Amino acid sequence: MTFSAATIAQLAGGRVEGNAQAAVSGFGKIEEAQAGQLAFLANPKYEEYLYTTQASVVIVNESLELKQAVQATLIRVPDAYSAFAALLSQYEAMQRQMLSGREEPSFVHDTATMGNDVYIGAFAYIGKNVRIGNNVKIYPQVFIGDDVTIGDNTVLNPGVKVYHRCVLGKNVIVHAGTVIGSDGFGFAPQADGTFKKVPQMGNVVLEDDVEVGSNSTIDRATIGSTMVHAGAKIDNLVQIAHNVEIGSHTVIAAQTGISGSTKVGKGVMIGGQVGIVGHIKIGDGAKINAQSGVSKSLDNGKAVTGSPAYDYTSALRSQAVSRRLPELEKKVKELEAAIAALKAGG
Amino acid sequence: MTFSAATIAQLAGGRVEGNAQAAVSGFGKIEEAQAGQLAFLANPKYEEYLYTTQASVVIVNESLELKQAVQATLIRVPDAYSAFAALLSQYEAMQRQMLSGREEPSFVHDTATMGNDVYIGAFAYIGKNVRIGNNVKIYPQVFIGDDVTIGDNTVLNPGVKVYHRCVLGKNVIVHAGTVIGSDGFGFAPQADGTFKKVPQMGNVVLEDDVEVGSNSTIDRATIGSTMVHAGAKIDNLVQIAHNVEIGSHTVIAAQTGISGSTKVGKGVMIGGQVGIVGHIKIGDGAKINAQSGVSKSLDNGKAVTGSPAYDYTSALRSQAVSRRLPELEKKVKELEAAIAALKAGG
Amino acid sequence: MTFSAATIAQLAGGRVEGNAQAAVSGFGKIEEAQAGQLAFLANPKYEEYLYTTQASVVIVNESLELKQAVQATLIRVPDAYSAFAALLSQYEAMQRQMLSGREEPSFVHDTATMGNDVYIGAFAYIGKNVRIGNNVKIYPQVFIGDDVTIGDNTVLNPGVKVYHRCVLGKNVIVHAGTVIGSDGFGFAPQADGTFKKVPQMGNVVLEDDVEVGSNSTIDRATIGSTMVHAGAKIDNLVQIAHNVEIGSHTVIAAQTGISGSTKVGKGVMIGGQVGIVGHIKIGDGAKINAQSGVSKSLDNGKAVTGSPAYDYTSALRSQAVSRRLPELEKKVKELEAAIAALKAGG
Repeated sequence: MTFSAATIAQLAGGRVEGNAQAAVSGFGKIEEAQAGQLAFLANPKYEEYLYTTQASVVIVNESLELKQAVQATLIRVPDAYSAFAALLSQYEAMQRQMLSGREEPSFVHDTATMGNDVYIGAFAYIGKNVRIGNNVKIYPQVFIGDDVTIGDNTVLNPGVKVYHRCVLGKNVIVHAGTVIGSDGFGFAPQADGTFKKVPQMGNVVLEDDVEVGSNSTIDRATIGSTMVHAGAKIDNLVQIAHNVEIGSHTVIAAQTGISGSTKVGKGVMIGGQVGIVGHIKIGDGAKINAQSGVSKSLDNGKAVTGSPAYDYTSALRSQAVSRRLPELEKKVKELEAAIAALKAGG
Repeated sequence: MTFSAATIAQLAGGRVEGNAQAAVSGFGKIEEAQAGQLAFLANPKYEEYLYTTQASVVIVNESLELKQAVQATLIRVPDAYSAFAALLSQYEAMQRQMLSGREEPSFVHDTATMGNDVYIGAFAYIGKNVRIGNNVKIYPQVFIGDDVTIGDNTVLNPGVKVYHRCVLGKNVIVHAGTVIGSDGFGFAPQADGTFKKVPQMGNVVLEDDVEVGSNSTIDRATIGSTMVHAGAKIDNLVQIAHNVEIGSHTVIAAQTGISGSTKVGKGVMIGGQVGIVGHIKIGDGAKINAQSGVSKSLDNGKAVTGSPAYDYTSALRSQAVSRRLPELEKKVKELEAAIAALKAGG
Repeated sequence: MTFSAATIAQLAGGRVEGNAQAAVSGFGKIEEAQAGQLAFLANPKYEEYLYTTQASVVIVNESLELKQAVQATLIRVPDAYSAFAALLSQYEAMQRQMLSGREEPSFVHDTATMGNDVYIGAFAYIGKNVRIGNNVKIYPQVFIGDDVTIGDNTVLNPGVKVYHRCVLGKNVIVHAGTVIGSDGFGFAPQADGTFKKVPQMGNVVLEDDVEVGSNSTIDRATIGSTMVHAGAKIDNLVQIAHNVEIGSHTVIAAQTGISGSTKVGKGVMIGGQVGIVGHIKIGDGAKINAQSGVSKSLDNGKAVTGSPAYDYTSALRSQAVSRRLPELEKKVKELEAAIAALKAGG
């Protein structure tokens, strides 16, 4: 796709300075860009490159005062960085939108149905009775098990695996390698010390606007559904166990693990590498600091840190003292000696 | 597959109440089930749905006393939940059992051999000299490297990767995305600050009845075998380093990591997000609490918590005091002042 | 491939004792090896097997004194274990070197270019404008997005996913299931409590000689590049967030996570399950103990442990006292009583 400076100015809400017909078909950094590319200048320390860049069009701040002549066509906007970012984002969305049709070889069961403008990448596998909405993008090497439902505009990146009977809403994004719906970790101990697998018969539901990072794992429920409510955002390498419920617009950073049947409220912020035990309740709006170990239910809005986690402010105070423990122990010994001396003296 | 109420009652060891010829071909929750589906009622709080459900057959507790007329055929059993779970589990096992044959395209090297009733999903890759037993189910997008051996009834879920020369026993289950046999993390520091890769020449052995969750990693031994003994159960996102040995019927929760050459005994229980250093020995029946950091060998039956981990009961006591550290420090200061006053007074 | 004892002796810098024409085509442990295999004896406790082994050729230490007659041809070298390891390593490298050509079905876009001796495994996907160097080995089920560049001799193991526009140098090794270039975790909070995705427009650069383990995740930069400099070694299940920079020859053990925009220096050693917050700087040669939580920048050469992490030696001292906290608290209570008694007595 090729765009003229005039078109870009219109998209970015800016003003052209130079040749409005200058055409670009790609993006570059100002110091590396080639003819036919669009660049931007936001940070004054890169200004020197403006006078030597090969870029055909450069987005600059409204306020920029030129110190030399410039070959490139300029587009002046209030905030060059934001304007450039927005354009690049629109461009990637357009490219994704254009992804459509089925690459071969791919495997789509006869009984699967799909909407308009769906993309099925090569080596993707779509099982029996799968229902796929409009404008869904299924990248190469994705696996979708039998009886899965996927809503409009959802994007499954390369190698995502969705086990049978799971349900994904609209506008969901799942990154590469993530597994949705594998068996929960349930084993009944037997008298002889062995374990018997408890069948995991439920599924996973990801509601609308959920995003899940790469190589995360969300296990299917033993019975019923492991639920991730609308708008929740989950990072890479996160573990969500069976029968967990994650509230709307809750954010979970990388490498956190949430044990079975725990209910996390709405708008909760969970840092990286947090562990949460099973069968507890985390209140709406709670904040859990990175690497915390949460072993008890938390009230709405509660902030905690530490392992085991407790009140954030108190925990920080205790952590500060814990660094002075050797001195504290020494002082106590001195006090013992002083008292012994006082007693002897008395 | 369609089953009559009479057949289901026989499978479940129950008694039909109503039309014994009522037929079902699927499962549903009592509040959502359609005609032709089987549901169950275990929890009394859902009893109202029994009188309105569309399900054709409902499994109920022996002891249930009806308050109204019921359209569905009932099957009375001692424990409705267990009976339903067992039926669903049998049904899924039957469905898996019926998976057989080779989907195309798949890649099977000429020199690979396989038993009866094997399923090879589309986009699966089977390397040279691979030996596959009877009734093995290899889902789509699985990779099996050269010279791998896989025992009867083993199930490899979508996208599992097994490197060359690894050995998997019978009745093993590996969930999606897990990697068996990647190189151990071995690098010899060089005089110039760089690292030289130490060749990882061994393999991984998973004995019979081992289950491994999704996106876990088990590295091949430097020489010899990384061993997971019979019946061990490993959750999602677990890291098992090179030359580790995991004892029979040991259970390892999600996101735990075990460093190189450590030997874990039999029947050990390891919580989530535990870290265990290399080259130590964890005794049979030890219990390691979630998020512990184990830096020393543990005796048989030992229970530990904390990072660094030590005796469970002592550690809990210290954790309790650590929350009172600011008060403790304040008291010591007061004592110092009191003694100074006493001295001055004396 | 078959090798004579004479050839092996030459490769290993050793001396043949017995039939120099004895031929081997594989490797075995001395106690299990078959005719036509090469074994080694390094540990004296296995010496008995030397006299009964079926191996055709055995590598032994220069210094070994035979106690009985030996059927196998011996090759005497200064260090039998090292010599055997080196030979096995050379053999695996030769086998990998021989992997070449394109297995079908695979997907290679018309606009992709590649050097000599490239291997493309079945079900691998190579996008638009991908540039692949000489002798690159791309195993089955790998995904390489549009506009990716891959240098000579790089190995991508099964199922690796490389998103669009990432750059991999020469001699890079990436293990199975690892994801390079997924979106960074960036969401702008909105007034209504929802989150808006921040477009992740940058890429990931892995320089020459980098090795990354299995199922790790390295996110693309928001703008610019997430950088892993030459010779860095990264283990399994590691999370590298957007815009992070990892210095040359830094080593990162399994399950560690590094948050956005943090810069890690050269030659840093990071243990397993470490968490590092965003936007800080870790100095060259720093050492971070396993399970540490690093919340502040570290000077060059600094060693830390704990969560939150601080000076290694001080932290160990505090940890030691923390185990005696219950006794310390008890002592302080006794001192309070003693002082009260003194006061009363005075």
